[in-house]
Amino acid sequence: MATPPNVSQRDFDRALSEFESAVGADWVFKDDESVVLYRDAYSPFKGEEEERVASAAVAPNSVEQVQQVVRTANEYRIPIYPISTGKNLGYGGSAPNLSGSVVLDLKRMNRILDVSERQASALVEPGVSYFDLYRHIQERGLKLWIDCPDPGWGSVIGNALDHGGGYTLTQLRNHFDAHCGMEVVLPDGDLLRTGMGAMPGAESWQQYKFGVGPWIDGLFSQSNFGVVTKMGFWLIPEPDAYLTGTVVVPKHDDLIALVDILNYLENTGVVNGMPQLGSPLIGGFFSQPDPELQALLSRGAPTAEIEDYAREVGRGYWSCTVKFYGAEKAIAANWEYAQEKFSAITGATFEDGESFKFPLTFEQIEDITRQQSVGSRSSTLPEFGIPSLTMFSIGARSETNPTPTQGHVWFSPIIPRTGEAIMEANRVFAEAAGELGLPVRAAGFSLPTTYWNRSFIYLFGFPISNDIEQNRKMRESFERLVRVAAEHGWGEYRTAPAFQDLVLDTYSFNDNALRRFQERLKDAVDPNGILSAGRYGIWPKHLRDA
Amino acid sequence: MATPPNVSQRDFDRALSEFESAVGADWVFKDDESVVLYRDAYSPFKGEEEERVASAAVAPNSVEQVQQVVRTANEYRIPIYPISTGKNLGYGGSAPNLSGSVVLDLKRMNRILDVSERQASALVEPGVSYFDLYRHIQERGLKLWIDCPDPGWGSVIGNALDHGGGYTLTQLRNHFDAHCGMEVVLPDGDLLRTGMGAMPGAESWQQYKFGVGPWIDGLFSQSNFGVVTKMGFWLIPEPDAYLTGTVVVPKHDDLIALVDILNYLENTGVVNGMPQLGSPLIGGFFSQPDPELQALLSRGAPTAEIEDYAREVGRGYWSCTVKFYGAEKAIAANWEYAQEKFSAITGATFEDGESFKFPLTFEQIEDITRQQSVGSRSSTLPEFGIPSLTMFSIGARSETNPTPTQGHVWFSPIIPRTGEAIMEANRVFAEAAGELGLPVRAAGFSLPTTYWNRSFIYLFGFPISNDIEQNRKMRESFERLVRVAAEHGWGEYRTAPAFQDLVLDTYSFNDNALRRFQERLKDAVDPNGILSAGRYGIWPKHLRDA
Repeated sequence: MATPPNVSQRDFDRALSEFESAVGADWVFKDDESVVLYRDAYSPFKGEEEERVASAAVAPNSVEQVQQVVRTANEYRIPIYPISTGKNLGYGGSAPNLSGSVVLDLKRMNRILDVSERQASALVEPGVSYFDLYRHIQERGLKLWIDCPDPGWGSVIGNALDHGGGYTLTQLRNHFDAHCGMEVVLPDGDLLRTGMGAMPGAESWQQYKFGVGPWIDGLFSQSNFGVVTKMGFWLIPEPDAYLTGTVVVPKHDDLIALVDILNYLENTGVVNGMPQLGSPLIGGFFSQPDPELQALLSRGAPTAEIEDYAREVGRGYWSCTVKFYGAEKAIAANWEYAQEKFSAITGATFEDGESFKFPLTFEQIEDITRQQSVGSRSSTLPEFGIPSLTMFSIGARSETNPTPTQGHVWFSPIIPRTGEAIMEANRVFAEAAGELGLPVRAAGFSLPTTYWNRSFIYLFGFPISNDIEQNRKMRESFERLVRVAAEHGWGEYRTAPAFQDLVLDTYSFNDNALRRFQERLKDAVDPNGILSAGRYGIWPKHLRDA
Repeated sequence: MATPPNVSQRDFDRALSEFESAVGADWVFKDDESVVLYRDAYSPFKGEEEERVASAAVAPNSVEQVQQVVRTANEYRIPIYPISTGKNLGYGGSAPNLSGSVVLDLKRMNRILDVSERQASALVEPGVSYFDLYRHIQERGLKLWIDCPDPGWGSVIGNALDHGGGYTLTQLRNHFDAHCGMEVVLPDGDLLRTGMGAMPGAESWQQYKFGVGPWIDGLFSQSNFGVVTKMGFWLIPEPDAYLTGTVVVPKHDDLIALVDILNYLENTGVVNGMPQLGSPLIGGFFSQPDPELQALLSRGAPTAEIEDYAREVGRGYWSCTVKFYGAEKAIAANWEYAQEKFSAITGATFEDGESFKFPLTFEQIEDITRQQSVGSRSSTLPEFGIPSLTMFSIGARSETNPTPTQGHVWFSPIIPRTGEAIMEANRVFAEAAGELGLPVRAAGFSLPTTYWNRSFIYLFGFPISNDIEQNRKMRESFERLVRVAAEHGWGEYRTAPAFQDLVLDTYSFNDNALRRFQERLKDAVDPNGILSAGRYGIWPKHLRDA
């Protein structure tokens, strides 16, 4: 058994023994077979010395037990690393930033404390997964939807604290924005509640975020300032109906107007679902360009030639599928209005998509699941507030993906929500990929994700492998792209522990003033530096210079 | 000239002289005629020893000057109190919590640094008022709306930092939620940027809020942790059209279903403007019940009798005006759908309201202004993104308001967004008012404000006067109501300095854990305690026990 850095075996044994007193011997994991489960299955350091691994794990069942564990950790200076359910593949899984940390596994704290249909809100513990919450809602026949990420096996709290996003209505797709109220165990074992929850007997903890005075909730996201033990969320009352429609535009530069019009529609609430940008020339996730197009791309044909090709094959250059939730007649009128607006682009054509009235029948859900798993449908379960794992079929071995990777880490820079930014990102990333010898699937056609209505996010999965040398090269490429992105003013919104120091380094305005401020807060809040050392680049004082 | 507490005249003179070197002699105000302008015109301590007054003021013109002033303040331990434009009547105006503080007046920093029509965003300095931003947008012919408070003379930044609210689309009426990115001078003079702004050359500072790592923005709202020198905001692209409609329901208990259906409609995005609850029995702000109804209310007639009376006079018990922004046909369909939903309430009747296509003509704006100023129109300028001062006509002497007050302080508790909570609040506040001998205009008919879609806020103006004894009684009543509200789990969302300690006291969960945490942060961030001592109940260490 490994010990945490700078902790004697004797102190570690004592601490583990106190953890056992706190949570019960069954819930302290120290044998190798148990601790190995906390490895990051997608670690970019798989099999290397530098892989970040836990020394043990402890799984409390209550807030009081969390407080006891934290107090013991302070006494013996044991680094602890809280996880909610420990999913988060591609962003670090359940492994700590600092090897030798004890994982504080909150999976047993899986109580759904309140779900209000009238207020469309929930209060949950960190071990509650999207599936748990969904089941709870279904069992009670409540007319509520959850905005869930895809896959949906993770923790509702964990995803929000990691700044995750979802797939339904615009105003709820940003999961941290859609939270309301927290309970937090501080690094010294003290307990606080935020927002209205700071008032004993508060009647609107899940209804008003700020309470009074400085709003501290943000401090506990992507950070190591406290262990969130309860968190409130806004849910969505089941809407009346749903509708999608697709606009296709013929020319490369039409992307600029396409995005501008989309922004107008989403920012005025006309489009209130997650839009989807695409290119009919390329198709879906694993599609390859036709040989003819591939030949054009390979020889760097000018845009005009590709436009000619698009016209010849009658497919259009770009597409955008827009989605609408709400009253049946109103969303039909909104799609009509969207078409009017998009018609400002010469040659724009339109295609009606799917439509549903809610609730979905069991047969409809089965049908969506089946079609989603083979990628033949544009609307997927999360768009109807239903958590799903079919996303994993994308990475699985299949006809279109004959050589699946062993996993991936996400490179996920934020770029401005403009057509020009998409073009520039394609140019910059293709150039960097060329230099690094990375494969580029369809140069110039890479499109961002649209979780949120004010920015774009690129999601590039960098494959990890069982080959150490390949992983080393992958990490170098990843690091290079982080720097290239930063040179263009594009920063990652989230990253795995292996890259957190680097990413924070790129947020360096005024001699890294933000990090210096965060470190000052860290020292004040966690003077012994026991909590999640290194998370998102924030190290405790005694490890800072190492 | 007064000196700040614990500062010698000599040190104060030196500090003022350094302020003059930093900002120019013209922009340091120390004579009584100048400093008196920073008094709170609505101070509840008017003319009393306890009135919180400044000793001087300093008005920098740049971030560097702010940094210099802050450094000097640290050197001489001068308490400084930043204001943006210093409006905020009813919540403290421009006067500091700690008498003798030097007001840091940011009015000269009134640059509009960026307005993007395509991104529907703005980056401004603290001295920029809603009128300034509106004028800037109009002069350039940009199709953008501002969600502004009413009145709109204040600072865009100041209002957001005070957690203010507005009147247009649901997703932007919460002004702090609708901000994106900050620049902050810390209490030691250091400068940081938050969100994507922490990346040099960031391209999406106004497009993605969180950046990477812990999100610290909330710390700088309703607080004393830094001087915000720039802040980004999301604006609204001018929508296509606007429509209102009113539902009237006949019975007292119909309020419960009325609010539930309203919640459903607003939480699914069907209604996306600010709804307005009312009672046709009472009418507008200064209306008095008819003598017959007044007689019923005075003798505490049972609800059934009031319902009978309502039926006889054909007026209904409650009303709700709902508002829609968006594509003309879609919002008409949404109003139709809303009527279907509200029809679940037996006896519900409907009335079409105003409708507009945008842009408004000059004549339409003039007409709205004229009618708004006499209270004869339901839609007001702020609902069209236009700042206005006509709100002040409410408090002015008029036929319906023959005895205007000298001002007021707002008592503004948050309550759950349910009909039951409205009824309970009416009962509780009327009972307390009875005990305190306060006038109750129309018992049982007091209705909350609906800035935000997840909670209700009551706004009760407590009149201040030129009579010291009356103000003393008012303060006692105010304090009593804060406590009564807290006993029922209802907390203030915002309050004037005179009541900030008290209000924070009511947020007392776990031995005031939130305050203890805030104080710990305060000591780390502002060790000399120079910034806004006492703001929202957070005092620096050396003044904490006093």
